[in-house]
Amino acid sequence: MVLHLVPRCSARLLWASPGWRRTYTQGTSVGQKWLGCPRDTYRPLACRGRSSVSGSPEVMLTPERYPVQRLPFSTVSEEDLAAFERIIPGRVITDPEQLEACNVDWLRALRGCSKVLLRPQTSEEVSQILRHCHKRNLAVNPQGGNTGMVGGSVPVFDEVILSTALMNQVISFHDVSGILVCQAGCVLEELSHYVQERDFIMPLDLGAKGSCHIGGNVATNAGGLRFLRYGSLRGTVLGLEVVLADGTILNCLTSLRKDNTGYDLKQLFIGSEGTLGIITAVSILCPPRPKAVNVAFLGCPGFTEVLQTFSTCKGMLGEILSAFEFMDSECMQLVGQHLHLTNPVQESPFYVLVETSGSCAGHDAEKLTNVLEKVLNSGLVSDGTMATDQRKVQMLWALRERITEALSRDGYVFKYDISLPVERLYDLVIDLRTRLGPRAKHVVGYGHLGDGNLHLNVTAEAFSQELLTALEPYVYAWTAEQRGSVSAEHGLGFKKKNVLGYSKPPVAVKLMQQLKALLDPKGILNPYKTLPAQA
Amino acid sequence: MVLHLVPRCSARLLWASPGWRRTYTQGTSVGQKWLGCPRDTYRPLACRGRSSVSGSPEVMLTPERYPVQRLPFSTVSEEDLAAFERIIPGRVITDPEQLEACNVDWLRALRGCSKVLLRPQTSEEVSQILRHCHKRNLAVNPQGGNTGMVGGSVPVFDEVILSTALMNQVISFHDVSGILVCQAGCVLEELSHYVQERDFIMPLDLGAKGSCHIGGNVATNAGGLRFLRYGSLRGTVLGLEVVLADGTILNCLTSLRKDNTGYDLKQLFIGSEGTLGIITAVSILCPPRPKAVNVAFLGCPGFTEVLQTFSTCKGMLGEILSAFEFMDSECMQLVGQHLHLTNPVQESPFYVLVETSGSCAGHDAEKLTNVLEKVLNSGLVSDGTMATDQRKVQMLWALRERITEALSRDGYVFKYDISLPVERLYDLVIDLRTRLGPRAKHVVGYGHLGDGNLHLNVTAEAFSQELLTALEPYVYAWTAEQRGSVSAEHGLGFKKKNVLGYSKPPVAVKLMQQLKALLDPKGILNPYKTLPAQA
Repeated sequence: MVLHLVPRCSARLLWASPGWRRTYTQGTSVGQKWLGCPRDTYRPLACRGRSSVSGSPEVMLTPERYPVQRLPFSTVSEEDLAAFERIIPGRVITDPEQLEACNVDWLRALRGCSKVLLRPQTSEEVSQILRHCHKRNLAVNPQGGNTGMVGGSVPVFDEVILSTALMNQVISFHDVSGILVCQAGCVLEELSHYVQERDFIMPLDLGAKGSCHIGGNVATNAGGLRFLRYGSLRGTVLGLEVVLADGTILNCLTSLRKDNTGYDLKQLFIGSEGTLGIITAVSILCPPRPKAVNVAFLGCPGFTEVLQTFSTCKGMLGEILSAFEFMDSECMQLVGQHLHLTNPVQESPFYVLVETSGSCAGHDAEKLTNVLEKVLNSGLVSDGTMATDQRKVQMLWALRERITEALSRDGYVFKYDISLPVERLYDLVIDLRTRLGPRAKHVVGYGHLGDGNLHLNVTAEAFSQELLTALEPYVYAWTAEQRGSVSAEHGLGFKKKNVLGYSKPPVAVKLMQQLKALLDPKGILNPYKTLPAQA
Repeated sequence: MVLHLVPRCSARLLWASPGWRRTYTQGTSVGQKWLGCPRDTYRPLACRGRSSVSGSPEVMLTPERYPVQRLPFSTVSEEDLAAFERIIPGRVITDPEQLEACNVDWLRALRGCSKVLLRPQTSEEVSQILRHCHKRNLAVNPQGGNTGMVGGSVPVFDEVILSTALMNQVISFHDVSGILVCQAGCVLEELSHYVQERDFIMPLDLGAKGSCHIGGNVATNAGGLRFLRYGSLRGTVLGLEVVLADGTILNCLTSLRKDNTGYDLKQLFIGSEGTLGIITAVSILCPPRPKAVNVAFLGCPGFTEVLQTFSTCKGMLGEILSAFEFMDSECMQLVGQHLHLTNPVQESPFYVLVETSGSCAGHDAEKLTNVLEKVLNSGLVSDGTMATDQRKVQMLWALRERITEALSRDGYVFKYDISLPVERLYDLVIDLRTRLGPRAKHVVGYGHLGDGNLHLNVTAEAFSQELLTALEPYVYAWTAEQRGSVSAEHGLGFKKKNVLGYSKPPVAVKLMQQLKALLDPKGILNPYKTLPAQA
């Protein structure tokens, strides 16, 4: 199969196999898409950069691979289905084929066995569903775009899947302040198009943008590619509407930049992965669309030079620096081998992508050129290329954004998403290469250097318990020793809930469990996720 | 008294009366001040822009002015004092004269009758104090710089005052990432000096900077003058250490930009005004120090023109716009009359202060000049002046920053701090002028227009119940009708806790009360504050 460099925002769509149904980002106009017309036909929810296509082996049921016991929730009965049907007529899905995509995570590592998928359109419907589930002690798995990395978005057993896919309406947009209010099921890429047409941008951008929902982004406190410039969702999300475990609607959907009245309840739900409540609507502050975007792609002779290049960029680019990403030579090798992307600069041990976003093309180009002259002359950078036109900008970004895709074509992937002090960021990669030796196919490091966020990935021909044992808890203990975070931006979900203690003290874990008990006393919301099981 | 235009950062110190003890921002070197040497002598904690000097009338006890009943906490006994003395020898203050400044808020509207002030130096000491108070059912009033506007920082009755003043050490500063970790009692202005020497700035700046503590800033989720550019503390605070009501130390003092492991507990304590725990240390992300700062001070013919000037600045200044403040002509009249500051432009109905902060003086000046040409030529602005040198920048800022001070010299001040949609921001001021007529001396509006934040102030010769009745709940109901916030950045404290319901629904208030009960079941932490008394 020949692959082309394609615009960054839809690169992943090329990977859909012939048998893989199109998402609605293809073939429909933006106008149709999400100014409120719920689609009639069901569509698979996961499509992010997926390399496993039709014919790939069946995914093992989660409880068969992981030691987890079903909690004593009720089982969905015919009466429950009838009740759901009364609440959302025609939107209760029980067809096993249709349920398949919602039971399996996009990394194809986990499989639940849910028998029912609910597709509400309004918060009131979500409220009625949860009221029923709460009364009946039915567990619920909230699901957005199902693009999570840690198994937070699929059921572990037979939880009722509550999808936000049909909650995809923009509620309001203020074209002076840039405040967007929308339902939780709006797809990030579509929101991006919507606000860009109005001269704003979304404050976050992710590789999964074509599938992920804004509600899921908020529920997982997604980081991504614009974090360096626009900061955390904890600052840019202004309000939320949330349905609590018992069906109560908590309306904190304010559109104000400042509001210091009482405790900021919305923060409880940002990053809690649907375990404390289901986010149904979001109010978010969008920054003005930059008039000029420039990208430089640079080769560095060593990691020390990567760090010094970062310091130089911070100092000289200041307020226009909008991304500083890095990748090692093995990443470049993999995107070349599996995706046929071409390295635009001479081979180097490390590569860096620097993006500027500003309000004056001339000023920005001058600043970036000055930086490039400096880093080239001082030997921090051995070769580089710069892009100002959109097509080339997207080509350069693809080298970084499609690493995940290349990795998943390389074999089974052990994925780690770690925060570390920048100066130690790459040491773990080097250390692991020595530790694993030939047992690993590749050990690669890349990520958001500007945020101190390393994506450490290890590939092997197939899943291997021996390799896993060599990796864990070693990686977590190494991270804890540096006072790093064992999950920088991916969250804990199902796969990492038991490593929480590497980054948080027992007092904190206990308080989290108390909060869970307060907000969801029956534990029906996204069970088996985020927090370790209580002793 | 002749007043001079002085550097913005210490303007308020001029107002200390001869009998008013100097704060340690005067007369000691920065080195001595806060690289860890606790000061031996007690100093008053409140000095912010205070105009009431020696000889001013006694402040009425809070329960005499407000309908509030003491809750059944224990009373401090000799045994308690002995226990405190064992925990913090020599730092238990019971001298009534020394207690005076800590019992009265800086607006001189509230007075508690605490008999004891505790001055711990470490989190361990705070922990031991709270463990004792929790066991003994003693109420505790955490106090930072005592510069709050809503009476959150002074006792209402005889609560034990726990001051963070001696917890003033910088713990660490990372000069690549700009991450500062420090104790809660560090004074904001001193932290500013510290990080500026290292080429960074604090992400927040307030009129009260010379007195307020970073712990208090975080506890009240302070907004201030840099909010437009650097956003909320919810995004820039990376970690906190907090002592819980029972003395448990919750250490979430991480120095990572990204950490998605479990619930973000620190958010509970940001903005909760010391009612859920006492913040003892803060980790905060400091932005690089801008290489160029320019300020323009402009006169606008109407509020519509103010808004259009804002839109123009946002569009043309983009990423270098760091403040957009406005004030009306009555504000200018008051700073002239009471502080003898000179209006640098021709008389106008409105004035606007635009600040840019960027990494290239030439580029920034060019952008700002282009904006000024455009707004002058289009009639949005009738007159303007621009400053690039620090002295003139500070003179222009003084016009805006010292309005609070001028107001307090004008008589009794009724203060409101409101978030509104920008296009309605000034309507309330106009409406109130008509409503109050000659009963009010002045009705003025100013504030952080870029954040939709209006400071509405009404002055009168003296406190008047009739005027208060005309103002409240009218102002709150008006705000609620616009879906605004009745406290944008000042918090609720003691004075505004009962108006929470104007900005938050009953479901939210109930959940806040549940959180309070979970974290502080005996209610000993800053009682009578933030949340309305439960029915």
